[in-house]
Amino acid sequence: MDFDVSWLDNVSQERLWARHMALGEIGGTPRGGVNRLALTALDARAQRTLAEWAHARGFGCTRDAIGNVHIRRPGTDETAAPIFTGSHLDSQPTGGKFDGAYGVLAGFEVLEALEDTGRATRRAVEVVAWTNEEGSRFQPGCMGSAVFCGAAAAEAMWAVTDRDGVSVRAALDAVCAAMPLPARPASHGRPAAYLEAHIEQGPRLESAGATIGVVTGIQGSRRMTVDVYGEEAHAGTTPRAVRKDAVSAAVAVIAALESLLHDAEDIVRFTVGRMEVQPNSPNTVPSHVHFTIDLRHPDAGTLARLGDGVEAVAQRAARSKSCTAAVRHLSHVAPTHFPAETIALVRDAARCLGYRNLDLPSGAGHDAMYLARMCPTGMIFVPCLRGVSHNETESATPADLLAGARVLGAALATLADR
Amino acid sequence: MDFDVSWLDNVSQERLWARHMALGEIGGTPRGGVNRLALTALDARAQRTLAEWAHARGFGCTRDAIGNVHIRRPGTDETAAPIFTGSHLDSQPTGGKFDGAYGVLAGFEVLEALEDTGRATRRAVEVVAWTNEEGSRFQPGCMGSAVFCGAAAAEAMWAVTDRDGVSVRAALDAVCAAMPLPARPASHGRPAAYLEAHIEQGPRLESAGATIGVVTGIQGSRRMTVDVYGEEAHAGTTPRAVRKDAVSAAVAVIAALESLLHDAEDIVRFTVGRMEVQPNSPNTVPSHVHFTIDLRHPDAGTLARLGDGVEAVAQRAARSKSCTAAVRHLSHVAPTHFPAETIALVRDAARCLGYRNLDLPSGAGHDAMYLARMCPTGMIFVPCLRGVSHNETESATPADLLAGARVLGAALATLADR
Repeated sequence: MDFDVSWLDNVSQERLWARHMALGEIGGTPRGGVNRLALTALDARAQRTLAEWAHARGFGCTRDAIGNVHIRRPGTDETAAPIFTGSHLDSQPTGGKFDGAYGVLAGFEVLEALEDTGRATRRAVEVVAWTNEEGSRFQPGCMGSAVFCGAAAAEAMWAVTDRDGVSVRAALDAVCAAMPLPARPASHGRPAAYLEAHIEQGPRLESAGATIGVVTGIQGSRRMTVDVYGEEAHAGTTPRAVRKDAVSAAVAVIAALESLLHDAEDIVRFTVGRMEVQPNSPNTVPSHVHFTIDLRHPDAGTLARLGDGVEAVAQRAARSKSCTAAVRHLSHVAPTHFPAETIALVRDAARCLGYRNLDLPSGAGHDAMYLARMCPTGMIFVPCLRGVSHNETESATPADLLAGARVLGAALATLADR
Repeated sequence: MDFDVSWLDNVSQERLWARHMALGEIGGTPRGGVNRLALTALDARAQRTLAEWAHARGFGCTRDAIGNVHIRRPGTDETAAPIFTGSHLDSQPTGGKFDGAYGVLAGFEVLEALEDTGRATRRAVEVVAWTNEEGSRFQPGCMGSAVFCGAAAAEAMWAVTDRDGVSVRAALDAVCAAMPLPARPASHGRPAAYLEAHIEQGPRLESAGATIGVVTGIQGSRRMTVDVYGEEAHAGTTPRAVRKDAVSAAVAVIAALESLLHDAEDIVRFTVGRMEVQPNSPNTVPSHVHFTIDLRHPDAGTLARLGDGVEAVAQRAARSKSCTAAVRHLSHVAPTHFPAETIALVRDAARCLGYRNLDLPSGAGHDAMYLARMCPTGMIFVPCLRGVSHNETESATPADLLAGARVLGAALATLADR
């Protein structure tokens, strides 16, 4: 495949890096990471910064019903469906500067380079900052892309509440008040294709000495919560035999689930990331433990089978400690396989620009998961240090970020000219 | 032993019950329990109510350096050391109306009955509401009695902080501002003896059909915290083999401790009542788990041996999950044995008043633990429904509360006349 690479010299390593550093200060932590939870005042500030950059370049900036922010550079044929790129601005509570931010900023850098060159595209190109990808404050994650692509109803997502009882609707209203933007008009259309750039969040590119990851798909994931119920009692007087100790039961449940989900090949990803104990007093036998399950697997059948086995195992283990367990299924996203043509486009662009590249699946979920249900979708990975992500020490090099943005630019321009 | 029982008719079941209901409204929960954590505004309100009752009867009301509130009915010989009784006004976050409150109100009822009768005592009688017995907001518990009896330094306790970083000193200043009281003068002296009335918080009196528990001592307790350290990582991309998952490690640690501390006789009391996870995000492998250990045993040697074994077992289990564990010892209180003479005094008073009684040790810790280091000390238990305590459904009958107050009155008057 032939690519127009002439304008790619205007993709600026310095500008792209400076934008990461500027965005990283919003919610920046003392340890160099970022704490910018979805739909908080800090998230609104990040959107404001992005919108200011967009307005300075004359790009339109709108917001849709679930809060996704769209920055649009028009095409010469405004009747043609746009090409989308982007990622997200929200972070984990102890996240890094690159997860999500990179996909938004790489897309924005491509828009700027096109503009600097005065290079028109037939289709409009929209950079989208998707709402609540992380799913840390509000579950499930990838909320903005799920709603945009019709995989979830906006009304249902608006009703979701955080741990303090604040709803997505209320939080979104606060963001809209802090950072008003026009509503995205329906005439801007649905995407003809979507490409998302992201740090790998795993060690494979680094190990292979490759600069560009050609992402073939995304493993499937299931999210659940488990509530273990016991009975409060005095820690000093209540014999073990008559206790209904919810922590002891939760320990038994998690240990049983670790056995259930153990595979010698180490492909299953099973995480209990959040746990809350009630009443959480040192000298009271606990009555309630709430915890989350994040379960992932690249094979749809295996994922379904393993996830379906959780409830019976949890209940049996809880009963062995005279407690009960209730499992709630929050989401079940089957593995995503990107179309061969989009994969080839990314691979060819990397080759054309002379970057060592590697085909690989994504272990992490991304908004591309939902976009893939709506239009031809692909992803571009760049390496991150030691594969570490969801961690304040998350790190990537300016040169690798540039490489990914150039591959994104080459592929986006090709799609936008079609 | 002979008791002066004539004035005990003035110990009023109705008044004692009404006082419990009134106090139970301060921090009362919809489920009929009490949430009145130590040194909160609600705790100050409970102190205000008690002080108002005291002032209405002309009893003096003072506060000492760690915040213990003393209500004093003078004796005929003010050079003689006073007799103390009391318990505490703070509760568990989901506690009941009787734990602690009963000991204070039974003591106060005795003062009122003495006053109603116009019966003098040689020694002053002081009802003390000890600060932070529960140890729920600030650890360790029995803080007020420990400081009063010299087992802990006030300065060290003032520096203790709650989960929000608020110090005992700051919280105590707020209570003093909300409910000012004169400082307890040194001339009021140290106690010549201490008696504490309390609900049993266990099922033995109910099972035996006894009304009065003659408490022989208090089992020993050790409090510790365990911090399990791992490393944050992405839940979707990080293979099990390279994870340092602090929740998985904490589960292994608690399971190993349950094995270590398992006794066929079911005498060991081992509770993990509080647990906090960091960063507590569903899709991040957790980096840190903090949890508490409450360990009790009636035998000093066994308690020492079991508690000393915790650290090695915790560290080994954490290492098996590529994590580390740090154990901090907060307190180690050896079992308390009340003097035979005080035990006999309580038993004789119960017999003299015709109550079925039972000698039994206390499973729960009480302020009497520290008072026993300073002066002859005893305790009087009354039954509570199903032995349930540290629970909003905690319940006791007006008749049993009266019986305990009458036994307390008979014993207190005997001590105060000596």
